[in-house]
Amino acid sequence: MSRLVCRINPVMATQLARIAADKLMKHGARRAPASSTICHPCRLRARPLHTSASRRTPPNTTSRSAPQTPTSSTAITARVAPIGWLVGGGLVASLLAFSQTHDTDNPPEASVSPSADDRDPSIPRFRLSDVRKHDANSPEPWVTFEDKVYNITDWVEAHPGGDVILRAAGWSIEPYWNIFSIHKAPHIREILEQYMIGFIDAADLGPDGRPAAESIEDPFVDDPVRDPRLITHTVKPRNAEPPNEELDRTFYTPNELFYIRHHMWVPVVEEAKADEFALTVELPDGEAKRYTIGELRSKFPTHKVTAALQCSGNRRNDMTRHAGKTNGLQWGVGAISNAEWEGVRLSDVLADAGLDTTPAQPEANSLHAQFTGAEAYSASVPLPKVLSPTGDVLLAFNMNGEPLPRDHGFPLRAVVPGNVAARSVKWLNKIVISDEEATSQWQRRDYKSFGPNEGPNPDWDKAPSIQEMPITSAITGVWVGDCVRKVPWMGGGNGVKSGGSKRTIDIAATPQKVGFTPKPETAAPCPETTPDNEPIVLQGYAYSGGGRKITRVDVSLDGGATWDQAELVDDCSNPATPCYGNKSWGWTRWRYNGTLPVLSLPTSTTTTTSSPTPQIPTAIQKVGQDCEDGFGQSVGGLMGQLPKKQCTTLIVKATDESYNTQPESHKGIYNVRGNLATAWHRVRICPECNKGKGGGLVWNTGETYGCGFRKEAEEVREGMRAASASSGSGK
Amino acid sequence: MSRLVCRINPVMATQLARIAADKLMKHGARRAPASSTICHPCRLRARPLHTSASRRTPPNTTSRSAPQTPTSSTAITARVAPIGWLVGGGLVASLLAFSQTHDTDNPPEASVSPSADDRDPSIPRFRLSDVRKHDANSPEPWVTFEDKVYNITDWVEAHPGGDVILRAAGWSIEPYWNIFSIHKAPHIREILEQYMIGFIDAADLGPDGRPAAESIEDPFVDDPVRDPRLITHTVKPRNAEPPNEELDRTFYTPNELFYIRHHMWVPVVEEAKADEFALTVELPDGEAKRYTIGELRSKFPTHKVTAALQCSGNRRNDMTRHAGKTNGLQWGVGAISNAEWEGVRLSDVLADAGLDTTPAQPEANSLHAQFTGAEAYSASVPLPKVLSPTGDVLLAFNMNGEPLPRDHGFPLRAVVPGNVAARSVKWLNKIVISDEEATSQWQRRDYKSFGPNEGPNPDWDKAPSIQEMPITSAITGVWVGDCVRKVPWMGGGNGVKSGGSKRTIDIAATPQKVGFTPKPETAAPCPETTPDNEPIVLQGYAYSGGGRKITRVDVSLDGGATWDQAELVDDCSNPATPCYGNKSWGWTRWRYNGTLPVLSLPTSTTTTTSSPTPQIPTAIQKVGQDCEDGFGQSVGGLMGQLPKKQCTTLIVKATDESYNTQPESHKGIYNVRGNLATAWHRVRICPECNKGKGGGLVWNTGETYGCGFRKEAEEVREGMRAASASSGSGK
Repeated sequence: MSRLVCRINPVMATQLARIAADKLMKHGARRAPASSTICHPCRLRARPLHTSASRRTPPNTTSRSAPQTPTSSTAITARVAPIGWLVGGGLVASLLAFSQTHDTDNPPEASVSPSADDRDPSIPRFRLSDVRKHDANSPEPWVTFEDKVYNITDWVEAHPGGDVILRAAGWSIEPYWNIFSIHKAPHIREILEQYMIGFIDAADLGPDGRPAAESIEDPFVDDPVRDPRLITHTVKPRNAEPPNEELDRTFYTPNELFYIRHHMWVPVVEEAKADEFALTVELPDGEAKRYTIGELRSKFPTHKVTAALQCSGNRRNDMTRHAGKTNGLQWGVGAISNAEWEGVRLSDVLADAGLDTTPAQPEANSLHAQFTGAEAYSASVPLPKVLSPTGDVLLAFNMNGEPLPRDHGFPLRAVVPGNVAARSVKWLNKIVISDEEATSQWQRRDYKSFGPNEGPNPDWDKAPSIQEMPITSAITGVWVGDCVRKVPWMGGGNGVKSGGSKRTIDIAATPQKVGFTPKPETAAPCPETTPDNEPIVLQGYAYSGGGRKITRVDVSLDGGATWDQAELVDDCSNPATPCYGNKSWGWTRWRYNGTLPVLSLPTSTTTTTSSPTPQIPTAIQKVGQDCEDGFGQSVGGLMGQLPKKQCTTLIVKATDESYNTQPESHKGIYNVRGNLATAWHRVRICPECNKGKGGGLVWNTGETYGCGFRKEAEEVREGMRAASASSGSGK
Repeated sequence: MSRLVCRINPVMATQLARIAADKLMKHGARRAPASSTICHPCRLRARPLHTSASRRTPPNTTSRSAPQTPTSSTAITARVAPIGWLVGGGLVASLLAFSQTHDTDNPPEASVSPSADDRDPSIPRFRLSDVRKHDANSPEPWVTFEDKVYNITDWVEAHPGGDVILRAAGWSIEPYWNIFSIHKAPHIREILEQYMIGFIDAADLGPDGRPAAESIEDPFVDDPVRDPRLITHTVKPRNAEPPNEELDRTFYTPNELFYIRHHMWVPVVEEAKADEFALTVELPDGEAKRYTIGELRSKFPTHKVTAALQCSGNRRNDMTRHAGKTNGLQWGVGAISNAEWEGVRLSDVLADAGLDTTPAQPEANSLHAQFTGAEAYSASVPLPKVLSPTGDVLLAFNMNGEPLPRDHGFPLRAVVPGNVAARSVKWLNKIVISDEEATSQWQRRDYKSFGPNEGPNPDWDKAPSIQEMPITSAITGVWVGDCVRKVPWMGGGNGVKSGGSKRTIDIAATPQKVGFTPKPETAAPCPETTPDNEPIVLQGYAYSGGGRKITRVDVSLDGGATWDQAELVDDCSNPATPCYGNKSWGWTRWRYNGTLPVLSLPTSTTTTTSSPTPQIPTAIQKVGQDCEDGFGQSVGGLMGQLPKKQCTTLIVKATDESYNTQPESHKGIYNVRGNLATAWHRVRICPECNKGKGGGLVWNTGETYGCGFRKEAEEVREGMRAASASSGSGK
């Protein structure tokens, strides 16, 4: 019988502590003792190093000693950052399972294999009920894979991905490998095989020789219920965007519609215990300090910041359609949302923790603030961003005046305004100031290819990690013809009035039926062209990173031949939606109304109006496609052979206060990851004869929400869902 | 006899003082008394308001009293900012001419008109020698226009353009009106006519009834001699850029080649007296403080900052050629240069002057720092830029380790890194912190259309003034074929070696004669195509405003069909050229070498290789032009009708750390001012048969410096000169 001494390293201690805490969180107070505790690091139960004896001889899991009792629940400073968990009235040792010694002489609870089991009889069998006991709180964590059982005790510390592996302890590791798909490689399986200790007992196996599905833990079982209006790209983990017509209807995206970008499950934190959620701050010298949310609230002034968050993959589907296949979630224009965040300034907390927070100190240039969330995701920002007096980096606990929703980081998240949203780490429980960069490009961490294998893209891999976002814009709503009467912000609707702008259509003066839906007496011939006064209204958003204000938005209704300026909605001066912060971190909404160019209707009965007629030489067809809208007049000797202008492309592009503007096409910025798809946003629309359906015109587009269109938002969503399903997960 | 009391306002006092100072500067110590003085504002000589008596009765200019004697030459604080001038050992009252009373009863020195003079004999005549006495130091400044004399005393204070009008006092105002061409309007002449007091004596007029040219002061007479290598766009004021081949040969542009962008003449400051040059700092509450350069040097720590300065019109000629006519100086790619600046931090000085310089204070958001130079140019930056601990705004007196050259602001200039160079005001002698913006768009100040009338451009006028610059890049050198052996940084040349980059061609292994200049045995048939291994080397710069680092430069040799990354020159880690400052304010040089695509040579004997053959339909020609390089293969049914690929377009585009990139074309950002011409830089090159000149190939380009080209730099320069001559002046 060997008694293990304290050998665990500090990093490992915090990792184990966090995972244990997460488990406790999830299972509530089930295991919480009446009193709470902080484990001294040297009480942490260490695993033996790689000896076959220890690897193959799991302890008797029943021999636990009582948890330690803490002496204080206030933030503490120590070289090692112990992480406890506040449950009920005091600190609970999340590490309680490790704060003991144990007997390694007890044999594993192997059973004899039944006669139907033709697997190697010399290898022990374990019941799943036994495996369950070797969870993250156990000194000897086990996992299963297919029908085998593994004691991963010795591997945890060496695991490149860190302690997240303990999330699977006591259960099958398969659903996690499905998330961290880099594990689907032969050499990973070989590593695991080193730790095999036996088979799952045949009594727990189904006819296929595997455990039943219900005996495999679903990591997402505790995810929150989402608003049904969200367009979901993946369910586990959940990735979803608001429908265009809801996205920027108001300046602040409603919390329940704010886009969701998860890499993993949503950690469970009881609402009543939110103030006890703890954040550890570790400085470059290793000094660490721990703050509960309650302490953050009471110790530091709170600030509000208005900021849009945007995924680097926003508009990726646009790049796919215009420049070629991209890997990753096929976001529409909704991987961005705008909110008011409230919390404390990270720089205040760092100063309190003992960091020199003088701005512009050269030492800061080589440091990063690494954020880690309770589900193991991490990302970092350069420290100068945090120390900048105008950087407005928050540790936020409120969103749009309410506590953070679980999907958006409850109870605490980083908010890094102006930077890619991947830096605004949710369920934040650790900050390390380090000279190492923890990038949000999940793929670029140790689990290199989290998500489906995205293929080589050396150019992109060489690029620096994304921090400040480039300028972008999008069309989120189009109203054509009679629908213009329904635009909320142009009349008596429920939207914000545009306040006397000259661009506002006088609805009262607008004929009851404008051009768009003339109903001919018979259902017979279609009109040859669209009316020459067809009104059209567009709205959307523009955003630039780094707090650079949007100063101008240009709109084209004819594929870029002519341009006009859109009206910028001055939301920030609206007393109902004041903007907070030192720079322009929020998005800018814009509106435009104009008149569509006259378009020819197709003479054939086909509804595929965007295909050139077949007699056009291929190269010329291509030209037509490149120009997006075909030729409107005779071309060289080809008069009559080219299609008339049958479609038109609506475009938006924006300019920020640095006079940066968007690239014209996605071809010029194409990357296989489909990141930063910021080209001019184009929405192609085509009129169509509404034959047999009462006559008149309808419009086609597959690219945005619109009123007056045959293809409505649902079809757009369906297309995005299908594209996502075929591309799988990814940043 | 009326004795004038002190009625002059404080602003006027400082204006007059500055002009007087400038005059003194220019004429050295000629008028400087042995002792120096600071005028109390109430000693300032005020002009009477609009009374005909005072207007028509200039004083006896000889009745001057002695100047006041100051008690101290150190910086002083007062509600009004008196400006003196240090000459010799003490302060000289630049206002000495006004610190007195005078007698208005003395008659003007009118002479009788000679018999040859058929002008109205009832109007007085004045000799030019008399006019000269009514200079800026006179209490009654006069000017001439054509053959008339005007007493502008009462107009000076009302002059919308401020005190710069005194620059003409004692002389003809015509050369100034030629600079400030807004004056060439009838209503301006009408204003002047109100102040007419007589004719120039016929004895001073030539046969054309006007004064001789030599009697009209040339405001530019004291401008410095410039390096003959500079490409001059306008002579008076001087606007010039370095030739491409010199521009970025080294990381720091040599001072004598740094581009020159002047709105007016270069003020004269004696080198020996540079430390006595004074800067006045005025705070929002009206408090002002005065610092000599000597005081700035001794009182505040000095800092070095590496920063490129760039005119908003850089690459304007590019926009003209690719998108349409633009007004203003037709800059090539050289209205940008890079230097190391040394001086004191403006925020330190403002703090000393009494301003609250806490960063991120909301009050600062509405304030500007207005800079005014000794020649009357002014521009402002938002105060938060100045107060930012990472903003690096300097009051600089050194440039690349030497005192500022006169052309670059000697003895003091503002340096606002990351912003348009127009904010880095030269010959800086006044800073006012104010809630008013003094924009560098000279046209947008009171003299609305300084420079030629540029026509209406409401879109541009609506835009916010330019501060941070958007990202741009340019090709500054191209070496083709055999010339690749001459690239300085690729072999034993005098350039910086590229340090073992894999992109470096092994010159030793390069054949003596590479493809480019095959000399056929006879001068007879041209080759049908260029060689398939034609080497090409490019170099250039990239720059983004706001201190955003250049992270990537892409190059295409085939008009954008394929791209490759250029090597970024890591100048800042070079011990010989370390970079200073809190952000990436300098430019980034880049280099690329590759192989040109095979091109067909024209079969005709014409040298106009870029014109499509005449049988091609117009629209297809246009397509070919849009695609820049024609078609390389059969197109639809048009096989044989389209030109083969005979030219290729070299392109560079850059990306900064915010992942902002350049617009693809100038069409998308066209503005009639031709500002911010930041599109991908394209250099089109075409091979040509060198018939009758020894055979082989030569290359054509009109767009950059290159080796291996028939049109060399001189032709490019000539084209720019011609374009500038036809477009006139402008920002």
